[in-house]
This record gives sequence, structure tokens and C-alpha cells, in this order.
Amino acid sequence: MNERTKILLDENDIPKTWFNIVPVLPHPPLPPLHPATHQPVGPADLAPLFCDEILAQEMSAAPEVEIPEPVRDIYRSWRPTPLYRARRLEKVLDTPAHIYYKYEGVSPAGSHKPNTAVAQAYYNKKAGIRRLATETGAGQWGSALALAGALFDIEVKVYMVRVSYDQKPYRRHLMETWGAKVVPSPSPETASGRKVLAEHPDSPGSLGLAISEAVEEAASRADTKYALGSVLNHVLLHQTVIGLETIKQFAVGGEGPDVLIACCGGGSNFGGFTFPFVPRKLAGDKLRIIAAEPSACPTLTKGVYAYDFGDMAQLSPLLKMYTLGHDFMPPGIHAGGLRYHGDSPLVSQLVHEGIVEAVAYAQRPIFAAARMFAQAEGILPAPECAHAIRAAIDEALHCKENGQKKVIAFCLSGHGHFDLTVYDRYLSGDIQDLAFSQDDLQRAMANLPQVNG
Amino acid sequence: MNERTKILLDENDIPKTWFNIVPVLPHPPLPPLHPATHQPVGPADLAPLFCDEILAQEMSAAPEVEIPEPVRDIYRSWRPTPLYRARRLEKVLDTPAHIYYKYEGVSPAGSHKPNTAVAQAYYNKKAGIRRLATETGAGQWGSALALAGALFDIEVKVYMVRVSYDQKPYRRHLMETWGAKVVPSPSPETASGRKVLAEHPDSPGSLGLAISEAVEEAASRADTKYALGSVLNHVLLHQTVIGLETIKQFAVGGEGPDVLIACCGGGSNFGGFTFPFVPRKLAGDKLRIIAAEPSACPTLTKGVYAYDFGDMAQLSPLLKMYTLGHDFMPPGIHAGGLRYHGDSPLVSQLVHEGIVEAVAYAQRPIFAAARMFAQAEGILPAPECAHAIRAAIDEALHCKENGQKKVIAFCLSGHGHFDLTVYDRYLSGDIQDLAFSQDDLQRAMANLPQVNG
Repeated sequence: MNERTKILLDENDIPKTWFNIVPVLPHPPLPPLHPATHQPVGPADLAPLFCDEILAQEMSAAPEVEIPEPVRDIYRSWRPTPLYRARRLEKVLDTPAHIYYKYEGVSPAGSHKPNTAVAQAYYNKKAGIRRLATETGAGQWGSALALAGALFDIEVKVYMVRVSYDQKPYRRHLMETWGAKVVPSPSPETASGRKVLAEHPDSPGSLGLAISEAVEEAASRADTKYALGSVLNHVLLHQTVIGLETIKQFAVGGEGPDVLIACCGGGSNFGGFTFPFVPRKLAGDKLRIIAAEPSACPTLTKGVYAYDFGDMAQLSPLLKMYTLGHDFMPPGIHAGGLRYHGDSPLVSQLVHEGIVEAVAYAQRPIFAAARMFAQAEGILPAPECAHAIRAAIDEALHCKENGQKKVIAFCLSGHGHFDLTVYDRYLSGDIQDLAFSQDDLQRAMANLPQVNG
Repeated sequence: MNERTKILLDENDIPKTWFNIVPVLPHPPLPPLHPATHQPVGPADLAPLFCDEILAQEMSAAPEVEIPEPVRDIYRSWRPTPLYRARRLEKVLDTPAHIYYKYEGVSPAGSHKPNTAVAQAYYNKKAGIRRLATETGAGQWGSALALAGALFDIEVKVYMVRVSYDQKPYRRHLMETWGAKVVPSPSPETASGRKVLAEHPDSPGSLGLAISEAVEEAASRADTKYALGSVLNHVLLHQTVIGLETIKQFAVGGEGPDVLIACCGGGSNFGGFTFPFVPRKLAGDKLRIIAAEPSACPTLTKGVYAYDFGDMAQLSPLLKMYTLGHDFMPPGIHAGGLRYHGDSPLVSQLVHEGIVEAVAYAQRPIFAAARMFAQAEGILPAPECAHAIRAAIDEALHCKENGQKKVIAFCLSGHGHFDLTVYDRYLSGDIQDLAFSQDDLQRAMANLPQVNG
């Protein structure tokens, strides 16, 4: 048995390849469809947005993809990340379960997002691209791409959802310190933004709209490509470095997980952490894999599995995924990174095929879990991860009731240093358990594209 | 030669003892004096403020002090901290020098301060103390003690300098999330605070005054002791875990430092990083040891070496140290942790005896260095550490001019996640190089206690 607080690996143990789940899936994934023709999109359709190597990865069915040495060199600055045994939390819960967490908040941007941002910046730099456009909600993804832009000397333009732009100035200053240009979305700089501003000058924005703006800019400028921080296959591919390290760390620690948990918005930390474990589950291992999402934006637990647009302005290809409808506007919950109408097609397929379970939590129980974690383990979690912590605590309490000594592992995908005003509101009793509107959901569902028949 | 980005140690390599510099000094340190009698203080004088084991360490001349196992257990959550080779910064500077930095920002509180906060909370808990009072300027120390209080179930009361309380709400929310009670200083809760409020209701406060308030509360309540985050011998003792790890890491890496640099306010990260290297310097090694401070609060470079009070209200013992005068009010620079009129007596003695050099920098050059570092290395530094970065960059540029391949190592004592509004001001051109007032300095010097003859 491992007696340590954390299991570390040497930086030469950083994986040399990313894990591709596509060839492992029981059924081949359904292709993205062209938004107008509803025919499967080919590389040529997406070439205005992505450089060749990223497009090849997006479509790849190879079992693994080599991590370029310059990307591994940057990874060395914070990877391998620690796998912690949460001994003090176990003690507080008085549970026989063993709780582990893989901590991605040690990256300079404070989350798992740089794992793909660095890779995307590298491939674009190699392809001669000098500029990247992207969107950010809570700011974790924008920070990660700004960091990667500084490291590879690429200009970064970030459309930041208006409400976050106003409420999270620290995130904006961080991006600007690294050299990125940040504008609030909706912005007057794109047709998509101008259209919304004309109708709703005070619009708080949404991730779906910010994506439209960034995509529009990339599609209309020859020197600029688009970068996405979640949802797509190549993004989740890059994130599998998390799960691959975790497998090695459990091997060092001498025990393996019975339950794997990660929060799920677009699916990037969830996929990155859990995908490398899927083959053993498909081979008969009794591993449970749980995606934790907000009950106010319950894509996996209350959405439908259907083709839908990834963005509000219907510029993106149609993706087969769990969705609440591309024009569903989620309530203003404080886990901005989980506030997205859709989900990764790969994660959606795993849920649809019964390989992954999904649970949803309201805001107050997740902040109660986050504070308990901070007081026991020290680390202040991002509100997104608080969903995974809640699920892990509930599993551990279940083990206590049943006297089960399970091994529970979750991904702590980022710290909450830029979310402290929300913790203050929680401590002041000023956080509500938001319900989402069934009417809005019905309306959004009615607007799903016709391809779903 | 070490080809790695960072040199890590196993958590079982966390030192088992702290290093005490006292028996190594060429001359014995001069004792603290009673503020009224000017006689050396004994344990009985300080017993209202500190528990026995901490007092014993404050007075100790033993070469080393054992680190209790429960303290090492908490250290395991983030220690040993990484020693980074700043390869990308070296490349940007095009210097033949090798630059290393020991990164203490990986602690949950984001700085080196928990190294002593955890130890102090442990000893007080063991002594049956249920409450600790302290002060905080920039908030790093208060955060660290709040964390330690959560981990050892001790109530923590923090007097936070008013200007920081207003300007750094995130730091306050962090302390409160861990469970501490935070009040702005000057406060109506103490005689020292009420006196200042009566004369200056809008006083921005100062570290010297906040210390007076915390000391007063501890001295007047039987259930409460005082905790200090810098200056005193036991605090610097606990911080030597930084330098001890660094020595082991250089041994692994295969080369050793020619120049050691840390920023210096009260002296805790400076002493912690450099003291364990002092014996080799005294034994004839050509190592240079440099303390970097702000030119607007230039204690070591422009102060006098004299007995002075540690606090404004003259409640503390007199310490022999470099001082600008206990009623000197430093200008509102953005490195709040370096905004203190005095300095550690041990660091002061090393400067006085010519073993340590001191340099001072203005605000704009230190923020230019901090941003260059962030863009090259990724990590966003606290403004305090930016002084050390500036000194390291200047040394590296000097090496470039002279073709010298020196090894430069500095302590990156914390991250700047809670200092981003200041970075924003720097990027907007809104940061001035503040001079301090020679008149104020003369006036403060005239008020030094009479013991100095």
C-alpha cells in the first residue's frame, strides 16, 4: 500500500503519445455534418479554421498520436502533475474509501487547458500561422491559449463572454499580461456579434455566441486560425495525457481505481482523465466512470442525443451529441466552464452506449463540497471541479454506509483563485440552486436541425 | 549537466530538521531588549505572545531543530517544491548564465509562508492554544495562517492592513473560505487601532500598526497567542526547508550556484532560501548572496543598523536590525510584502558583517522583469518576487556582457494570482517609480529608541 500524500512521476515519464479512443469504441463515431448540406464534412470544409495536422488528428482513427518533442518540452514545466491521496478528506468523512485526485491546477494557467493549448499553438506555429482566435467563458481556456501564444510567439485574440469579462477582470488581466488581446462578446467586431448587439445591447453573451464570433474571425482572415478548448476530438486527444499519467501513477501506488469521476462541460477534462481507462472497462473491469454536471445546465442527464450546432449562429458543423439545443441559454451559474448547451461527441457516445454514467448537482451542494475540500486538503478548487468533488464525497459516504473500501479517483482540473468572489457569495448565503427553464428547453429542442428527422 | 526543466525530489526527501544559522554566525546575535527596561528579554517576557516550544526556538543556538512528523505530513502536500531551470528565460536574454528558480508558489496559499504557518499552528495546537491572532499586509501571510488554522482546527483572527483589505478582496475571501476571521486595521477592536482611528479615521493602515493590534489582542486574551510571518528567528528557521531542499536539488542537478538572490521585506523567504548556503560561503566558497528590496522602502540599502521597535505602537521588543524608523510610513508600493520599516535581525547582521549584499529597485523595472518572466516561463510572479527576478536578469545580462557562464539561483516565493489589478495598471502605464521622503526618513530616524545612544 502506498503511504504517500502524492504520487509523482519523473518528467521523462510524461507520455510520448496521446491516446485516441476512436478505434476502441464499440461503434464508429458518427461524422460531423456540413451545416448547410448535412453531408459529412471533409478536411477541405474545415481548412479555413484549422491547420492540416490538427485536422488530421480530428479525423484520426490511429490508436495513438505522437506528442511532438517541443510540446513535451513545455509540458515539462508542470507535468507530470501530482496524483494526491486525499487522506485528510477521508478522515473528515470517516470513510473506508481511498480518495485520490489528479491535480491539473499546477499549470501556469491554473487548469488542464494548457495541455491542448500548447499543442494547438505548436501545430499552428509549425504551419506558419501567426494568429489564433478563440472564445472563453470562465476564462480558463482563454488563459491557456494566451499562455501558449506567449510561449510560441503567436498573436492570440480572445472573445470573452461579456458577463465573465465584467465579473472576472483578473482572468482578463492574466491573458493581457501574457500578451493576448481580449474583447467582450458580443462585440462589434463580427457580424454575429453586431446582430446580437443590435437586438440586445446589454446581452451578457454566451459561450455559443463567443464561439460564433471567433469562428467568423478565423474564417474571414487568411492569417488567422481558430482554436477550441473543448468538445472536439483533437482537444480530448491532447488531454489524454492526464489519464495516461494517472494510470502510471496508480501502478506506482499499488492500487487502482474502482470509480473515476470528472466534471463535464464540453468534456475535455472528463475525456482526458477517463478515456485511457475505457479499454480496461470494455475488457470487463468493473470500473465505474462518472461525469458530473450542473443541474442548471444538464446536458448529459436531461438533453437529447441528436445532431446539433456547436454554436449559436449555426456556423459550426453539426455534431452528434447530447444537447439542450444550440439556442438554449443556460442560467448564470458560477461554474462558467460547464455552461454549454452541448457536449463532446465522444463523451456523448460513451454515455449513450452506457459506458459512462452522468450525475447532476445544484450549486449549494457543490460549494459545500468545495469548501469542505479546501479546509481538509488546502487547495481551493475551481467551481467546475466542485461538481467532481461533490460526486466523490457522495461516493465515499456511500462506501461508509456500506462498509466498502473502494478506490475513488477524480480529476481536480483547476484551482479557484479567480473565483473567490463566488466563494464570498457562498459564505454570505448568496448562492441559489438555480433551476433551468423547461419552457426554454422545449423551445430550444424544437429548433434542432432537421437532420434529426 | 542536468538536461531537465525542473529538479524534483521525493517527498521522503523533505528535510527532517530545520537549519539554525545562529551557531554559524561569526559573532553571536545581539539579544532583543525589553521595550521599557532595555534589558535583554527572557522567555517570561514573551510568554503571553508565544508558546514554549516557539520561544525555545526563538532563543535556540542549536545547529538544527527537528521538524515534527505532523508538520512534515502537511509539507508533503506541496513539498519538496520544484527547482526550475529557466531555459526559456535564458534564451530570451541570450545569456551564457544558467538561471534557476526555487518555486514556492505551489503551496495552497500560493507562497512560502505556509512553511512556518503550519509549524506555528502545530506547536500552538500541541500547547493547547485554541486561537491565534496575526496581521497581514499583502495577504500572503494571513492566507498561510488561515490555511494552517483550517488544517489544525485553530481559530485564526487576521488584522489586515486597511489598504490591502480594500484593494485585495480575493485574499480576504480566501482566508474566510479557510475559516479565518478578517478585520481591517486600524480596527476599533484594540486600543492601538482606536487611537489611530481617532486621529485618522481614513488611515490606510500599515504593517507596523497591524502588528500592534494583533500583539495587543494576544497579550490581553488568555486563550490567544500571537503568530508572526517574518522577521523573528523561529520564522526564518522554519523557512530554511527551502534552502535545504535547494542544496539537495543542486546536488542532483550536478552544478551549484555562484549567485543566490531573494527578495527581502522582513526576511523570511530570503533567510529561508539563503541561510543553509552561508556555511559554505564562510568556508571560502565564492558564492554571492544578494537581497533585493524596493527603492521606496530601502531598509537594507538606506536604513541604519540600530535597535528599534518592530511595531508602530512600541509594544514589541527592541530588535537590532536595519531600520527606517518604527514610525516611518512607506509609500504605497505594490509589493506589500516588502513594505516594512525593519528587517530580520539575522539578515541584518549578515548584511552588516558583509556576508550578504543588498540592492534596491524601483517599481517599473521590477514589473518589466516580472512580465518578461511570465511570458518566457509561464508562471505569473508576485510583485515581491519580481525584485529577485530583476536582480537575476541583471546578473544574467552582466554575464552576457562579460561572457561569464555563472549559475544564478533565485527564490520565486509566490505567484501573483491575487495581484493582477497591479499588472493591469502596469500594462496601462499607470505604475510610477515612487521615491520615499527623505524628510520622513530623517524624522523617523530621530525617533529611534534611546538605547542606541
